[in-house]
Amino acid sequence: MSDIQSQLGLIKRGADELLIEAELIEKLKTGRPLRIKAGFDPTAPDLHLGHTVLINKMRHFQEMGHHIMFLIGDFTGMIGDPTGKNATRPPLSPEQIQQNAQTYREQVFKILDPEKTEVCFNSTWFNDFGAAGMIKLAAHHTVARMLERDDFAKRYAGNQSIAIHEFLYPLCQGYDSVAMKSDVELGGTDQKFNLLVGRELQKHYGQSPQCVLMMPLLVGLDGSNKMSKSLGNYIGIAESPKEIFGKLMSISDELMWRYYELLSFKATNDIAQLKQEIEGGRNPRDAKVMLAQEIVERFHSRKDAEEALADFEARFQRGAIPDDIPEFTLAAAPVAQILKQAGLVASTSEALRMIDGGGVRIDGGKLEDKGLQLIAGSVVVLQVGKRKFARVTIS
Amino acid sequence: MSDIQSQLGLIKRGADELLIEAELIEKLKTGRPLRIKAGFDPTAPDLHLGHTVLINKMRHFQEMGHHIMFLIGDFTGMIGDPTGKNATRPPLSPEQIQQNAQTYREQVFKILDPEKTEVCFNSTWFNDFGAAGMIKLAAHHTVARMLERDDFAKRYAGNQSIAIHEFLYPLCQGYDSVAMKSDVELGGTDQKFNLLVGRELQKHYGQSPQCVLMMPLLVGLDGSNKMSKSLGNYIGIAESPKEIFGKLMSISDELMWRYYELLSFKATNDIAQLKQEIEGGRNPRDAKVMLAQEIVERFHSRKDAEEALADFEARFQRGAIPDDIPEFTLAAAPVAQILKQAGLVASTSEALRMIDGGGVRIDGGKLEDKGLQLIAGSVVVLQVGKRKFARVTIS
Repeated sequence: MSDIQSQLGLIKRGADELLIEAELIEKLKTGRPLRIKAGFDPTAPDLHLGHTVLINKMRHFQEMGHHIMFLIGDFTGMIGDPTGKNATRPPLSPEQIQQNAQTYREQVFKILDPEKTEVCFNSTWFNDFGAAGMIKLAAHHTVARMLERDDFAKRYAGNQSIAIHEFLYPLCQGYDSVAMKSDVELGGTDQKFNLLVGRELQKHYGQSPQCVLMMPLLVGLDGSNKMSKSLGNYIGIAESPKEIFGKLMSISDELMWRYYELLSFKATNDIAQLKQEIEGGRNPRDAKVMLAQEIVERFHSRKDAEEALADFEARFQRGAIPDDIPEFTLAAAPVAQILKQAGLVASTSEALRMIDGGGVRIDGGKLEDKGLQLIAGSVVVLQVGKRKFARVTIS
Repeated sequence: MSDIQSQLGLIKRGADELLIEAELIEKLKTGRPLRIKAGFDPTAPDLHLGHTVLINKMRHFQEMGHHIMFLIGDFTGMIGDPTGKNATRPPLSPEQIQQNAQTYREQVFKILDPEKTEVCFNSTWFNDFGAAGMIKLAAHHTVARMLERDDFAKRYAGNQSIAIHEFLYPLCQGYDSVAMKSDVELGGTDQKFNLLVGRELQKHYGQSPQCVLMMPLLVGLDGSNKMSKSLGNYIGIAESPKEIFGKLMSISDELMWRYYELLSFKATNDIAQLKQEIEGGRNPRDAKVMLAQEIVERFHSRKDAEEALADFEARFQRGAIPDDIPEFTLAAAPVAQILKQAGLVASTSEALRMIDGGGVRIDGGKLEDKGLQLIAGSVVVLQVGKRKFARVTIS
């Protein structure tokens, strides 16, 4: 029982909601490896850390000896948007799907053990399901229940059209659970309705209903919006070690602890102790460095993580940049003028002298080119002597 | 153009509604044989005259040289009621479907020319349609539009559940029109919504939308309810010549004219002239006999029609039974008592004497058995001498 309690502790770490805990305990008590399902859309295989929250949870289950099923929803991917209105959902060819699946594999196997992960494609059961199968499936759910789904309810009330096939997708997703005999399905909180459809359908097909574990959406680097490519607040897992490291060093302390919970594989106890040390006066930057190194190592290597740290320290001279430095937004200009406008020197001639004397740094590195032109869109930290700093955004 | 107007006249004869007349005229103007679709459920192949209203209209089109497609909805028939709640819609095996189709053929080819009739099965296109095909099809219609259908609207408003597959059946029926490239679909007035779905889908699939011709439901022998087996007010086309003949002779004059319009193949002008003659004093029974003979001949033979008439005349002595004879409902009893209770004789002993003397007829035939026991449920016409009649229902 204590084993079950410790499993439950790890399962619930960082999770938003677990339905239904008592049922999950019963399943764990059987001692057999549970069948863990998580579904992914084959259209966006370029993963960022937000996607890995779910995959990390799959890894937790894998570490506990359960059977992990990584489902690629290629069946609906090959259909695309049948109305043709949604340009971002063009139908994918089987070749594209296979290519995306390969990209997925390369990425998720940095987190999951490939030997212990079953990669499933729902075309396996839907290609031969038939129109008759779809009709029979649709018989197991009512229009009224489907219209209870938040977004459908709003659209129906607002006289915005809902095409009938939109009712079929949640049923397909739910049927995946039947075909896979899923014990637990993982998903985002935004997927709650669809995850529960799986439970319903399993009952109709004579199976014990799956438990549903909902993970939160990861907040992006800005600390407020969900991590997404389109918002630019993301860390792609294919980015370079230096980029990943630098981006993680830029997050707020508060966000760091959330990332520890959802992205780190450190034990919960170890994280609690680290937090205590920081509260006791240790520099939070230490914790941030540890997190950044863990993540870089996961997607690259131990060596890459060490090099990224060394590079970061060389550029920013560990501890030498004050937490608060003045910020400016200035128009594009030669660096000497920028130094003057930021108040780091009294005149451009002083700026040029300082550069010649080796007393000016840009982003932690010595500035050699006194004719450097700073261009719009760049953000640089300028340093004159030991104490004068400015962060300048060129507009 | 006069040819088109005369075609249109025959097409619209007896019809409730034609959508859209202007479009049908355009189709007729092309001069090509139009593709005429009518769909039938494979579960109830035992036809009565009510079913033949639609088939007669197909014959009209056939006579005008158009291409007739008799569609058997075997695909949905093989699914049955997926919820299992409807015992009257069990799934049919392919063998049962074939058998029912054969029964259909035997019956409809008494009306249609088999050489010029294409019998279609919608499994032909739906068996290979796939789950993906069904999803794409469902993308072409909205939930809101579907909920506008009368029965759905009522059930949704009344919190009665609608299973999602019920939305798929009208789409399947509509897609049949696409697969069959239908120019005109015939159906009952109760099918209006589904017939119009066919129009919509054809537009989505780049076809010119079918016209829709809705035929009324045939009123049964009682003159008020629609003809149906369960109400017992029907004439089955497989019934014996005598039964068909006798039942048609029993209908009201008003209903007779409606039957002429919907069931007779007499020209509209000929019917109008007959009506004029009746209004001018000719016995309406003459018109009823002509109708009864036409229908018996259609489903049996000319000879059967003549024999049925001879038999009918022998039993009821043409013109000898007054139009209005007294009616009684009496308890089961020996015929002598019934004769007395109906006021045809003064006493049972008089009744027995009259029977002995050959002066009593039952249903037009001489009554020989003076001990005859009339049993509950029978309806008989009793006649004493030349002038005394009574119609007695034994309760």
